[in-house]
Amino acid sequence: MDKATILSRLRAILGPAGVLHRPEDVALYEYDGALDKARPDFVVFPETARQVAAVVQVANAAGLPFMPRGAGTGLSGGAVAIEGGIVVSFARMNQILEIDLANQRAAVQPGVVNIDVTNAVSGDGFYYVPDPSSQRACTIGGNIAENSGGPHCLAYGVTANHTLTLEVVLPDGEVVDLGLPTADPPGYDLTGLMVGSEGTLGLVTEAVVRLVHLPETVTTLLAVFDDVNEASNAVSAIIADGTIPAALEMMDNVAIRAVEAAKKCGYPTDAAAVLLIDLEGFYDGIQELTAHVGELCRRNGAREIRPAKSAAERDKLWSGRKGAFGAMGRLSPSYYVQDGVIPRTRLPQVLRRIGEIGEEYGFTIANVFHAGDGNLHPLILFDERDPAQVRGVVKAGSAILRACVEAGGSISGEHGIGVEKREDMCEQFSGEDLRAMAQVKAAFNPLNLCNPGKVFPTSKACYEVGKRHRRLPRVVEEDHTL
Amino acid sequence: MDKATILSRLRAILGPAGVLHRPEDVALYEYDGALDKARPDFVVFPETARQVAAVVQVANAAGLPFMPRGAGTGLSGGAVAIEGGIVVSFARMNQILEIDLANQRAAVQPGVVNIDVTNAVSGDGFYYVPDPSSQRACTIGGNIAENSGGPHCLAYGVTANHTLTLEVVLPDGEVVDLGLPTADPPGYDLTGLMVGSEGTLGLVTEAVVRLVHLPETVTTLLAVFDDVNEASNAVSAIIADGTIPAALEMMDNVAIRAVEAAKKCGYPTDAAAVLLIDLEGFYDGIQELTAHVGELCRRNGAREIRPAKSAAERDKLWSGRKGAFGAMGRLSPSYYVQDGVIPRTRLPQVLRRIGEIGEEYGFTIANVFHAGDGNLHPLILFDERDPAQVRGVVKAGSAILRACVEAGGSISGEHGIGVEKREDMCEQFSGEDLRAMAQVKAAFNPLNLCNPGKVFPTSKACYEVGKRHRRLPRVVEEDHTL
Repeated sequence: MDKATILSRLRAILGPAGVLHRPEDVALYEYDGALDKARPDFVVFPETARQVAAVVQVANAAGLPFMPRGAGTGLSGGAVAIEGGIVVSFARMNQILEIDLANQRAAVQPGVVNIDVTNAVSGDGFYYVPDPSSQRACTIGGNIAENSGGPHCLAYGVTANHTLTLEVVLPDGEVVDLGLPTADPPGYDLTGLMVGSEGTLGLVTEAVVRLVHLPETVTTLLAVFDDVNEASNAVSAIIADGTIPAALEMMDNVAIRAVEAAKKCGYPTDAAAVLLIDLEGFYDGIQELTAHVGELCRRNGAREIRPAKSAAERDKLWSGRKGAFGAMGRLSPSYYVQDGVIPRTRLPQVLRRIGEIGEEYGFTIANVFHAGDGNLHPLILFDERDPAQVRGVVKAGSAILRACVEAGGSISGEHGIGVEKREDMCEQFSGEDLRAMAQVKAAFNPLNLCNPGKVFPTSKACYEVGKRHRRLPRVVEEDHTL
Repeated sequence: MDKATILSRLRAILGPAGVLHRPEDVALYEYDGALDKARPDFVVFPETARQVAAVVQVANAAGLPFMPRGAGTGLSGGAVAIEGGIVVSFARMNQILEIDLANQRAAVQPGVVNIDVTNAVSGDGFYYVPDPSSQRACTIGGNIAENSGGPHCLAYGVTANHTLTLEVVLPDGEVVDLGLPTADPPGYDLTGLMVGSEGTLGLVTEAVVRLVHLPETVTTLLAVFDDVNEASNAVSAIIADGTIPAALEMMDNVAIRAVEAAKKCGYPTDAAAVLLIDLEGFYDGIQELTAHVGELCRRNGAREIRPAKSAAERDKLWSGRKGAFGAMGRLSPSYYVQDGVIPRTRLPQVLRRIGEIGEEYGFTIANVFHAGDGNLHPLILFDERDPAQVRGVVKAGSAILRACVEAGGSISGEHGIGVEKREDMCEQFSGEDLRAMAQVKAAFNPLNLCNPGKVFPTSKACYEVGKRHRRLPRVVEEDHTL
């Protein structure tokens, strides 16, 4: 099928205003928030699941790849058309369809911006839990594709824990309803399978998500440390104590200085690390809990515990964390963010190793991350205009991920694999494990037209039988070398 | 392959003591906790994943079905060899392999009894959350197959939320490691897919499960009502208030009378319904919270609120709930338990409908259930020796499930589909939705030897395209007719 025929078929489905095809128009859709870029042949803007299904059928008939796109804020290249084809933008499917407060759920289209779900229900005392830093821009569809997390997922779980049902256009163009809005539905958990599959198993056209009651009270603490190891130990001590803060974030000195230069939110720029801690609950008891967590920090070496005294002070403290990635511009023209996960007990050791990797490759690395669940976000500062630095930064990133895997952790927490980390999947999984995933992909996406080139390593050696059936350590020993 | 050859191959793997084959020996493995019965050809007792894989390879070579079996407490026939073949008992794979308190997880074999995980860590202040009523007998492997719940899953989630990684022997005999013990692992969530797949996608040979801190304080309330609707309204009021009790269970008058006859735990036998409520948290604030929940019950018509004054009193109140199914023997020779789920807001309407169904079919029905998440367990009392009653009870059960589906709910919460409810899947899912599940099954289990005859309806009409692509109501309106 030639390009003109495809264009006319797409226009028949979507109208002329629903299809972009000229190079200057599609150029805007070459990239997302990661490093890879590629130009799609078409960008389409469907308004209904039926239109999405019809587009998928055209793509199948033409043998052309297709992939979903939300706000383009993804950090692993998931929305990039690296093999060309049709980008399906959900910009026009951005409606909250129904809100059911009695049963604590909302039906939304994939193009709804994350924060808009919370905005629609916060007046009634509810919110949508997953809160990626990009929540003012990123969409629910993108969150589902990447199984996004956020600072407040420590206590309440990631996107998978908040997605009840999905309407999905499968790679063959069929529309299915996955899951049920009740607890523990019968049959296979295909909703859970679809969440985090990065657009490789189908295109989500509607979701029913969970709404959660806003807590009666929230308190926020800033704990200031002169030693990163002490801050790490405080994190372990808080969790070991049985307390699950609503959020438990860490920033190191490089991050603190960048944030203060950009935002002036009152972090002490001479500190080695700060912890930002949210505690939630009923009004009765929250002051005691806050004092108790502060005491745990102090016992582990905090030089200062600063509780926010007002909502305005809380917002100010959080504005630093939420704006930390953007603030890196104060230090460097570009940054490359990694997304490894490690057992909390390994924080001191892996943070030290990240520092060493920075020195080896000649980069400054800032750390801003979800300490409570061991989800690291090292930000490697570099200059994208220098090709040698670009090559170096990718190598340094892979070295960090290897360190995470070696510590009993993983190569991705919430940013997805996409194009960027697909070869790193070899570090994480054996050939047998990867082939089990590939079987699922082949079942739904046998022509491999649905977001090709994502998630799976391209090297055939990765899939070899018995090549490396490496078991992760079940129990990660405490690191006593520090 | 003839039976003698299969026997000698199995013995070569497992030794003579590891294989049963004589009719009088395998007869013990004909049934589980549901109605269906069927005799397997062999029962084997492997001790390692390698032996399980070898058994699966023999089964594949012989074209013989094979299926996992834990304690045989399942309530939908999942462990019954309805097409014959090899029952793989996990009775000898019953070790807790490692406990990692710092990272809050334990590695266990599938034959470990549920309560034994908690017993192994409760001295250190931890427990394993999912607590089916059968928790003193049922195994972790069976819990994973059925995605089991329990009273305390309301606040903390079902088995899927507490399973981090799995070692699985796939239907082709390959051993894979699914998932990672870190938050939100990369790649497809095959652990989540395996949990609740009822042994149709593979045999779990090891699991890493989550350990949770025991709460600092637990209080238990018994709330007594003269009207079932008022008890239902109290449930909605508690949840709508933003409180999530650790458990929120309801028993109706028939259940209360049976329990009191058997256990004497102090429930008032003239009550229309009681709620049994657990509240957990830090010591500070828990008394206020308990008083507040009591007040919500009173405002909705509770005639009495009885807080347990000691651990012994708590255990006594809970002994009634935990022993409720067994207590039915006081009222009737047999009972048939259903497992529907409905939106909480529909409790009054559906409970009334269940009463009507009992009258229509001439059965007494007791209700003992997880009210907080709308998971009903109607117990239909009958006499198994009367074939007419057996036929009637199955019809009454299906009528109850239809009522659940019509109310926007589902045909199973935690007991699985198995053999028992496979045809009811037609009520719940469209042909498109069922075929999406069947694609996954075909990817892993193409020969259909791995637990055949379970989960999927046998009627071809169920799978027809467009036959009934029935959308569930997204929003369930409150029922104002009561």
